[in-house]
Amino acid sequence: MLDGDLYAFQDLLSEDEAAVVRRVHDFLDAEVVPIANDHWARADFPHHLIKRYADLDIADRQGSNLLNGWLALEMARADASMATFYGVHAGLAMGSIRTCGSEEQKARWLPQMAAFDKIGAFALTEPTGGSDVAAGLRTTARRDGDTWVLDGNKRWIGNATFADLIVVWARSVDDDQVKGFVVPRETPGLTATKIENKIALRTVQNADIVLDGVRVPEADRLQNANSFKDTAKVLRQTRSGVAWEAVGVMLAAYEIALKYAKERRQFGRPIASFQLVQDLLVRMVGNLTGSLGMCVRLAQLQDAGQYRDEHSALAKAYCTTRMREVVGWAREILAGNGIVLDYDIGRFVADSEALYSYEGTREINTLIVGRAITGESAFVS
Amino acid sequence: MLDGDLYAFQDLLSEDEAAVVRRVHDFLDAEVVPIANDHWARADFPHHLIKRYADLDIADRQGSNLLNGWLALEMARADASMATFYGVHAGLAMGSIRTCGSEEQKARWLPQMAAFDKIGAFALTEPTGGSDVAAGLRTTARRDGDTWVLDGNKRWIGNATFADLIVVWARSVDDDQVKGFVVPRETPGLTATKIENKIALRTVQNADIVLDGVRVPEADRLQNANSFKDTAKVLRQTRSGVAWEAVGVMLAAYEIALKYAKERRQFGRPIASFQLVQDLLVRMVGNLTGSLGMCVRLAQLQDAGQYRDEHSALAKAYCTTRMREVVGWAREILAGNGIVLDYDIGRFVADSEALYSYEGTREINTLIVGRAITGESAFVS
Amino acid sequence: MLDGDLYAFQDLLSEDEAAVVRRVHDFLDAEVVPIANDHWARADFPHHLIKRYADLDIADRQGSNLLNGWLALEMARADASMATFYGVHAGLAMGSIRTCGSEEQKARWLPQMAAFDKIGAFALTEPTGGSDVAAGLRTTARRDGDTWVLDGNKRWIGNATFADLIVVWARSVDDDQVKGFVVPRETPGLTATKIENKIALRTVQNADIVLDGVRVPEADRLQNANSFKDTAKVLRQTRSGVAWEAVGVMLAAYEIALKYAKERRQFGRPIASFQLVQDLLVRMVGNLTGSLGMCVRLAQLQDAGQYRDEHSALAKAYCTTRMREVVGWAREILAGNGIVLDYDIGRFVADSEALYSYEGTREINTLIVGRAITGESAFVS
Amino acid sequence: MLDGDLYAFQDLLSEDEAAVVRRVHDFLDAEVVPIANDHWARADFPHHLIKRYADLDIADRQGSNLLNGWLALEMARADASMATFYGVHAGLAMGSIRTCGSEEQKARWLPQMAAFDKIGAFALTEPTGGSDVAAGLRTTARRDGDTWVLDGNKRWIGNATFADLIVVWARSVDDDQVKGFVVPRETPGLTATKIENKIALRTVQNADIVLDGVRVPEADRLQNANSFKDTAKVLRQTRSGVAWEAVGVMLAAYEIALKYAKERRQFGRPIASFQLVQDLLVRMVGNLTGSLGMCVRLAQLQDAGQYRDEHSALAKAYCTTRMREVVGWAREILAGNGIVLDYDIGRFVADSEALYSYEGTREINTLIVGRAITGESAFVS
Repeated sequence: MLDGDLYAFQDLLSEDEAAVVRRVHDFLDAEVVPIANDHWARADFPHHLIKRYADLDIADRQGSNLLNGWLALEMARADASMATFYGVHAGLAMGSIRTCGSEEQKARWLPQMAAFDKIGAFALTEPTGGSDVAAGLRTTARRDGDTWVLDGNKRWIGNATFADLIVVWARSVDDDQVKGFVVPRETPGLTATKIENKIALRTVQNADIVLDGVRVPEADRLQNANSFKDTAKVLRQTRSGVAWEAVGVMLAAYEIALKYAKERRQFGRPIASFQLVQDLLVRMVGNLTGSLGMCVRLAQLQDAGQYRDEHSALAKAYCTTRMREVVGWAREILAGNGIVLDYDIGRFVADSEALYSYEGTREINTLIVGRAITGESAFVS
Repeated sequence: MLDGDLYAFQDLLSEDEAAVVRRVHDFLDAEVVPIANDHWARADFPHHLIKRYADLDIADRQGSNLLNGWLALEMARADASMATFYGVHAGLAMGSIRTCGSEEQKARWLPQMAAFDKIGAFALTEPTGGSDVAAGLRTTARRDGDTWVLDGNKRWIGNATFADLIVVWARSVDDDQVKGFVVPRETPGLTATKIENKIALRTVQNADIVLDGVRVPEADRLQNANSFKDTAKVLRQTRSGVAWEAVGVMLAAYEIALKYAKERRQFGRPIASFQLVQDLLVRMVGNLTGSLGMCVRLAQLQDAGQYRDEHSALAKAYCTTRMREVVGWAREILAGNGIVLDYDIGRFVADSEALYSYEGTREINTLIVGRAITGESAFVS
Repeated sequence: MLDGDLYAFQDLLSEDEAAVVRRVHDFLDAEVVPIANDHWARADFPHHLIKRYADLDIADRQGSNLLNGWLALEMARADASMATFYGVHAGLAMGSIRTCGSEEQKARWLPQMAAFDKIGAFALTEPTGGSDVAAGLRTTARRDGDTWVLDGNKRWIGNATFADLIVVWARSVDDDQVKGFVVPRETPGLTATKIENKIALRTVQNADIVLDGVRVPEADRLQNANSFKDTAKVLRQTRSGVAWEAVGVMLAAYEIALKYAKERRQFGRPIASFQLVQDLLVRMVGNLTGSLGMCVRLAQLQDAGQYRDEHSALAKAYCTTRMREVVGWAREILAGNGIVLDYDIGRFVADSEALYSYEGTREINTLIVGRAITGESAFVS
Repeated sequence: MLDGDLYAFQDLLSEDEAAVVRRVHDFLDAEVVPIANDHWARADFPHHLIKRYADLDIADRQGSNLLNGWLALEMARADASMATFYGVHAGLAMGSIRTCGSEEQKARWLPQMAAFDKIGAFALTEPTGGSDVAAGLRTTARRDGDTWVLDGNKRWIGNATFADLIVVWARSVDDDQVKGFVVPRETPGLTATKIENKIALRTVQNADIVLDGVRVPEADRLQNANSFKDTAKVLRQTRSGVAWEAVGVMLAAYEIALKYAKERRQFGRPIASFQLVQDLLVRMVGNLTGSLGMCVRLAQLQDAGQYRDEHSALAKAYCTTRMREVVGWAREILAGNGIVLDYDIGRFVADSEALYSYEGTREINTLIVGRAITGESAFVS
C-alpha cells in the first residue's frame, strides 16, 4: 500500500489490474529506482533496461484507462525520466499509429513496438512553434509520386537520438493539412542532435531534428491522419497520462518527505512532530488526494468514451500545478539535504519543471479549458 | 446538468438518487434561492420553510453517502445558511441520537425530527474551548438520583434560539467522561441568547447558551455516549458534510462568475473572452473538480465502513481551503458589483469564512491528519 | 509605536509630520474606531463627524507624499469606510480641482472644501464601463451657448447621496474628449440613488446617478481638463492612496490578530505560542513590511516628480493583493469569533474586497504595468 | 539602469556608492556571467577569478549597509554560487573575526583576507544539527594547556575544500559555551570532503568536515566569542545579506523572462503581448519591488544600529519566499527552453532552493520573528 494513497484509490483497481500494478511496481523498485539518480546525473539513458520494459507486457495498452493511468503514476513515482521515455514510446508514438494508422500499418509496426524491438519517437514540436503547435507548424511535406519529401526543424523530440521510428508531423504543401509520417531514424536527410545541458528529465534523450529533403513512401504516411484534429486525438490521450505522472511525482515526493521527517531529529524530537512540518505534509497529501480523485474520474470518462479535450487539459494543468507545490514543500522539509541528489527529492523537484511545461503549458491548457467553458477563444487575445 | 460539474460526477448517482437530487434541487431553486439574500440581510430565519424541508423526506438519511453528500452540496449551492440549519438538525442533532442513542431513544425522537416536528440543535462548543473541544470541555454533569444536573456555558450553537431539542455535551463529575443529553430548550435553567452582528451565515441563528442547574432525567441521557470518542464519531460524519458543502459553495460561485463573465462587456467584448478572466475561471473549475473527486471517494470509503477521522478532516480542511480561493476569484470577476448582495456572490464570500472555521478549523484538521500520517501528536507542540 | 511597524518606517516622518500623524491617529482612535462597527452594521454615515475632520486641518494636502500616505494609512487602519469618504472628498474631488481647475476655480472651491463646508464627490465610473473607463465613457456633454448639457448614468459614486459638489466626467459630443464639470448635487436633472445591500464599506454612501439634461455653466467646467489624460493624472495620485490604505488595513488586521492570539488560550496556552499561529502572524508582518517599503519609495518618487502611472498601478495591485491575504489570515486566527462584527476583524475582511477592486481592479492595474514594462498593450488582447 | 528596478531604488545610493556598484557590476558582467553556466554544470570552482575579486577592493566592508547589500544583490544577480563564495569568505568568515576577534587577531587575519590571499570558510552547521544550531551543537573543544583540542563533525561548509582558514565553532567541555576557532585547513586531524551530486549552487564547494583531535592554539581562539550569542551576531548580519541576494536572483530571473517574452513569438506575436504572460511579469516585479523596499529599510536600521535578529530573520524568510515564486514564474515563461542551462533561468531556479534553506530555513526564521512579536518561544512547540 502506498503511504500517500490515504483514500485508498488503489482499491478501485480490479484484482487483475492490481496484480499488473504490483508487477510493474516491483520491477521499478528493483531496476529503475536504484539507478535513477546516477543516470540522471550523467544524462545517460539506461539502454540495458529497454528489454525489461518489454517483459512487463503492458505497452499494447489493452487495459482500462484506470490501469494505464496507474501504471503511468507508478513509473513517474520511480523516475519521471523513464516514465517519459515510456510515455513517448507507448503513448505518443504507438498511440499515433493506433489512432491514425491503417490496419495494415498497425499490424506492421505495433507488435514490434510492443515488444520494444522498435522504439518510437514523436516529432511534433518545432523551435518556433511550441504552444502554437497547430497553426505554427512549418515543417512541410511535398508529394512527389509515391513518396513524400519532408523539410523542416523539430525540437525537444524525446527518445529521438536512439529511436528506430520517428512519427513526424508535417504540413502538406498541397492541401495545407497536417499529416503524420513514420520515419526510420536512419533515413537520409534526417539528423537528430541531442539537446545538452538540461536541468530536468536529464535521463530523457531529447533531440533537435533537422529534416532536409527526407523521402518517405506514401505507405508510411499514417493513413487516417487527415488534419491536426487527428493529431489532437493523440495529444488528448497522452495529456491525461501526464496528469497521472504528476500524481506519481507527488506520491514520491510525499513519501520521501514523510520518511525523512520521521527520521530526522532536531531539538530532541523527530521533525514530523512539529506543527510547521505537519502543515506541509498535510498540504501535500491534500493536493495529491484531490489530484488523484480528478484523474480517477477522468479515466472513467475515457472508458465511457465521454471525454473531451478540456477534460485532459484541465487535469494536466491542475495536477502539474499542484505537483509543483508538493515537490517544493517536500524539498523544504529536507532543507539542505534536499539539494543533494542522493536524497532523491532534488530529482523530482527538477523534473517537475519539465512536466509542468511539456504536453501543453499551463497557459495553453488553461485556454483550452477556458474556450470550452466560456465559448470564447482567447488564444490570441 | 451543473455547469461546474465538468467531469460529470453527478452521473455516479443511481437513477433513484438522481431523482432525489433533482427534487431537492428544484425545491431549493424555487423556495430558497429567491429569499436567501433577503433573509441573510435581515439575519432572519425563514421559519415558513421548515415544513417544506420535511416534505423532501430525506432527513432520515437512508441513502448512500454519495447521495447524502450530494444533497449537502445542493443545499449549500443554494444557501450555505440553510444548508447549515439542515446540517445541524439532520446531521449533528439527529446524528447524535442515531449514533449514541438507545433503540428506545431513537424511536422516541428520530421520527418527530425527521418530520421536522421537532427541530434539533447540538451544544458542544464552549466560549473557552473552541479547538480544544475534548480536554477543554468544562460544562459539568452531576448525577442526582435519576436526574442529572448540567452547569456551564456553550457558544455558537446553531438553531438554538428556536430548536425544540438541544443535544448538550457535558463532562461527568464522577468519571470525568463526556456524556450527551437531549435537553428541551424550554427546560428551566437553560437560556439561549442569539449571537448578533454576524457577517457570515447571517440566516443561521446561533446562540450563546447558559446552563444553570438544568435538570435532565437519566432517560434523556444518550445511552451509548460513554466518552468523547463517541462524540467524535458524530463529528467525523458531519465534517465530511462540510466538505460537500464547500463544493456546493464553489459550484455556486463558479456558476455566478461564469454567467457574469459571459454577459458583462468591457472594451467591446464579453469579459469571458479575456485571458485574465479565463485564468480565474479555470482555476475555479480545477479546484472544484479536484475537491469533488476527493468527496466522492470519501463517500465510497464511508459506504464501505473504511473511513477514519483523518479522512474527513483532510476533506474538510482541503475543500474549504480551495473554496476560499474560489469565492475570492469569483468576487474578483464581478469587481464592484461583487460587493452588492443582489449579485449573489457576496453572500457566498462571507459565508465561506464560517465554513472555513466551523467543524474544526484548518489548524485542528491539519493536526488530526498530521497525527495520523506521522504517528506524532502535535496539538500542543 | 505601531506593533505592526516592525521596521520602524514611521521614523522616516519628520518631527512635524509625526506630530500631525499622532494628532490624526488620536482623533481616529477617540472618535472613529468606537463607532465604526455600529455605523457599518447600519450602513449609516456618521454625519456628526464631518466637521471634526475639518478640525484636523489636513485636507489641503500641503505636506509630503509620505505624510499624506501615512495619513491614508492611519485612516484606513481605523475604518476603511471613513478613509474612503475622506479619499473621495480630499483626494478625488479636491484633487480634480487642484489638478484640472483654473486658479479662479481653485480659489472658489478648494477653501470651502478644505473646511468641509462643501463635501465633494467624483463621478467617473459608469454602469457599463468599469474597467474600460476611458473609451467606454458614454455620458455626454453638449455645449449650448454658455452652458453644457450633461446626459448619462454614473455608478458607485461615493459620498454622492449627501455631497455638495460632484465632479462629473463626460464626453463632449463636439470634440469627443472627456471633460470635467463641478456640479452641485441639487442641480435639476441630477438624481442620486443610494446603492443598498452592500457587504463592504457599508458606511460609505455610494450612489447610482442619473444625469438627465443637467445644465452646467461653462464657468464650472474644469478649465484644464482637456482629455482623459488629465483625468488619469488625478487617478494616478489617488491610486497610490489606496496602496497606503491597504497597508493601513493590514496593520489593523495584524494588530487585532496578534492581540487575540496573545489573549486567547487553548490547550492551556495562549494560541500565540503555537507554530501554526506564528506562521500566519509572520506571513502577515512580512506582507505588510514589504508593502510599506513599496509605498514609502513610491512617496519619494512622487515627491521627486518622477512617478508614472505604472508606479501607482503596481503599488495598488500589489498591496491590495497582499492585504487580501493578510485579512484572511487574521480572520483565520480569530476562528468563529472572527465572523462577529464586535471582534473588529470581520469589517476589515469585508472592506478589503472593495479596496481590492476599486480605483482599478487587479486586472486593469496589471495591464497598466504590463504595458509599461513590455511595451505591449494587452488591454483587449 | 536595471530593468527590474522599477521604483529606482538604486538612486538611493550616493554617487560614490553608485560608482562602486557600477564597477562591481561591470566586472560581474564581463567575468562571471559568461562562465557561470559552464562551471555550474561541471560543479567546478573558477579559482582563476579569486584574485579578481581582490581587485574590487570591497571585502573590508567599509561602506554603508545599503552599499554592501546592493553589492550582494549584484553578485547574486550574476551568479548565486559566486555570491555565496563571496558571502562565506567576506561575510561569515571575515565577519566572525571582525565581530569576535581581538584587535591583534583582526590585524593578523583581516588584511590578508581582504586581499584574498587567504580564503575563509565558516564551520557551524553539523550533520545532526541544522536548524537546532545552538543547543544541538556537538563538536567539542577541550582545553589542554595553551592549546584546544577539537573533535566533531561539520556539514555543508562552503569553500572548505580550498579555504585557507576555517572558522570552527565548538562547545567547550568546561563551561558548555560555544566558542570560535580559526583553524588552518591543513591542520592535522581536519579532513574536508567535498559534497558531491548537488543540484543547486553547484559551483560552491561545500564540504563535510571531520575534526579528529585537531589542536588549535589559544591564540587562534576568537577572543570575544564567549557564547552562542556572539555567533548569532555574525548570523544576523549575513542573514540580511541573503535577503539582498534573493532580490538579486529575482532581478536576474525577471530580466531573463522579460527579454525572452519580448523576443519569443507565438501566434504571430511576441508572447509579452499576452495577458497571461504580463500577469506573471507583473507579479514578479511586484515581489521584487516589495522585497527591495524591505531590504533598503533593513539597511537603514543596520546603519542606525537599531536592528535586531527578527529584522534580518523576517527579510531572509520573506525575500527568499518571494524569490522562489519569481524564479518559478520566470521558468514558466521560458517553458521548455527554461530547462536548458544555456537559457540561464534554470540555474537560478535550482540555486533558489539552496538560498531558501541556508542561513536559517523559512521555519526557523519564522519562529525567530514569531518569538519577537508574540513573546512566546515556539521552537519546540
